[in-house]
Amino acid sequence: MKLVNALTICVLGTGSLFASSLIQKASENGMMPIPADKAELMKLINDKNDPITKEKVELGKKLYFDPRLSKSGIISCNTCHNVGLGGADGIPAAIGHGWTANPHHLNSPTVYNSVFFKAQFWDGRSPHLADQAKGPIEAGPEMAAPASLVEQRINSIPEYVNEFQNAYGKNVKIDFTKITETIATFEKILVTPSPFDDYLNGNENALTKEEKAGLNTFIDKGCASCHNGIALGGTMQPFELAAKYKFASVGDFKGNAQGMVKTPTLRNITETAPYFHNGQIWSLSEAVQEMGSVQLGIAISDEEAASIVTFLKTVKGRKPDISYPQLPESTKDTSKPAFD
Amino acid sequence: MKLVNALTICVLGTGSLFASSLIQKASENGMMPIPADKAELMKLINDKNDPITKEKVELGKKLYFDPRLSKSGIISCNTCHNVGLGGADGIPAAIGHGWTANPHHLNSPTVYNSVFFKAQFWDGRSPHLADQAKGPIEAGPEMAAPASLVEQRINSIPEYVNEFQNAYGKNVKIDFTKITETIATFEKILVTPSPFDDYLNGNENALTKEEKAGLNTFIDKGCASCHNGIALGGTMQPFELAAKYKFASVGDFKGNAQGMVKTPTLRNITETAPYFHNGQIWSLSEAVQEMGSVQLGIAISDEEAASIVTFLKTVKGRKPDISYPQLPESTKDTSKPAFD
Repeated sequence: MKLVNALTICVLGTGSLFASSLIQKASENGMMPIPADKAELMKLINDKNDPITKEKVELGKKLYFDPRLSKSGIISCNTCHNVGLGGADGIPAAIGHGWTANPHHLNSPTVYNSVFFKAQFWDGRSPHLADQAKGPIEAGPEMAAPASLVEQRINSIPEYVNEFQNAYGKNVKIDFTKITETIATFEKILVTPSPFDDYLNGNENALTKEEKAGLNTFIDKGCASCHNGIALGGTMQPFELAAKYKFASVGDFKGNAQGMVKTPTLRNITETAPYFHNGQIWSLSEAVQEMGSVQLGIAISDEEAASIVTFLKTVKGRKPDISYPQLPESTKDTSKPAFD
Repeated sequence: MKLVNALTICVLGTGSLFASSLIQKASENGMMPIPADKAELMKLINDKNDPITKEKVELGKKLYFDPRLSKSGIISCNTCHNVGLGGADGIPAAIGHGWTANPHHLNSPTVYNSVFFKAQFWDGRSPHLADQAKGPIEAGPEMAAPASLVEQRINSIPEYVNEFQNAYGKNVKIDFTKITETIATFEKILVTPSPFDDYLNGNENALTKEEKAGLNTFIDKGCASCHNGIALGGTMQPFELAAKYKFASVGDFKGNAQGMVKTPTLRNITETAPYFHNGQIWSLSEAVQEMGSVQLGIAISDEEAASIVTFLKTVKGRKPDISYPQLPESTKDTSKPAFD
């Protein structure tokens, strides 16, 4: 508290009270920037037991883009988590193998910044990205590929085997867990620093006056009570949508066993319509107002919603440059695609 | 002829008869390299009336990767012509909207080097890439998007409108033709020079002795009678497959009205299994032998087929670096995806 007081006085002294105290206010409300310092960022996303390396990232990128990880050979991770579309697919509920919609009518979350989520999947059932990646690959309505099929395909392709050995050593066992861990390593670098981060990291000019006002409204209305942390989301919260949301009847998702749902990240939110677990609202300002009503129990006016949206545009981040990978050739031993 | 004779004498004089006379033999049999000289290449692929520019290529790349060009919003040009999979999809017959297989059971041809084809589609019905691109976008079992829907979506996105204006001028009319012409401009640069080209362009060491022997077998067996030109294919030929091919009964494709079919390119052929118009043969050596039997009326031995395959590996080309495009955001006016 002493430090905060000292900071406040210091800020008062410079005459730029509003801006700097807003940074402090955002921080006090749990909003955190992606660190500007690379080493600091690495500390957050790296796993000492499975460190991020160039070899793993390049290999993970290939796997992420490789449709042979699906039974049909035509659906990749990138199909539903499209790195060119804000890391999502832009449709209400994922469509997968056999043109089957997600059976719970669940919307595909963005892959960008997912490394910062405390839990994965809408019901938070998965603790980390490597575990998460197994789900859609194996799920019948998504990629429909059993672990054994994925292992067979990858191990049948010598170039993949070589790359795994280069990444993990000669004795690597290329099993489903190793494959999804490698995909996760690629996903970990999909971090998108934005003007909002520049601002929280100390660049007062990174946001306009209107954007700062929007941030202030965002906090005052209580949005940051769930949309906080670096991800501006990614933690489990009570799922009021089940009862009060105007499209609650679409799909059968009711949260986890405790009635909790993972708060979606707000990063790149302007790119990832439609919104909510069942993708039923396309307008961001409408989504903001619906959240006010459903989760916060307040009315958010059109003007306030517009101001919040003005702020939300500032969390659209700079995407890493991703060169499209050249995927290694299948061999005569590679299990053939199947469409049934 | 005088020049050829002079070259022969010159080659004899250097003592490297076999190698250099093989270049000449390939040339005399109609096989042509991708020019090493950039200006010469540009002469071949550029259209004076619609010149290739950086702006058009970047915009065309976005459109090529944008699944919103399909009715569902989840199928892009790259779905079936995947630039990471040799420019094709690796399955026997294309799967499109509604998980519908191509009704004629036709295999997706590669996009790489398609600028060198004399005709597009298996039946050669399309004269050039811009015209070709319209087909799969509109076809019900492929992307299922009427021209009017594509025009609506693109014109509803201001960033796209701006990019079209930057590429073509403020008064550009962004219609379906302009959209597919822009896609085609991107496709034109998808050219993949290979060791084979380096060899034909004069680097005697670009191919090994075994690869040169394979090229010689390829020519002696008559393969170059159809697989010639820069594309090593891409021209119309009589479609003997309809009668003699062992899998002729799969699908109902019988060539065009004159019984002709477009010879597929051999470039990057090791990456684009399965083979033939209906994708029924997965092994390249088996495909070579089948072609000998069906199109040439000769038996190609296992050894000869292996030698030809050794050569065919040398037409695997160096792919252009393609950074994944960040696609502009939809707006409230953008027509929504539909799945029926």
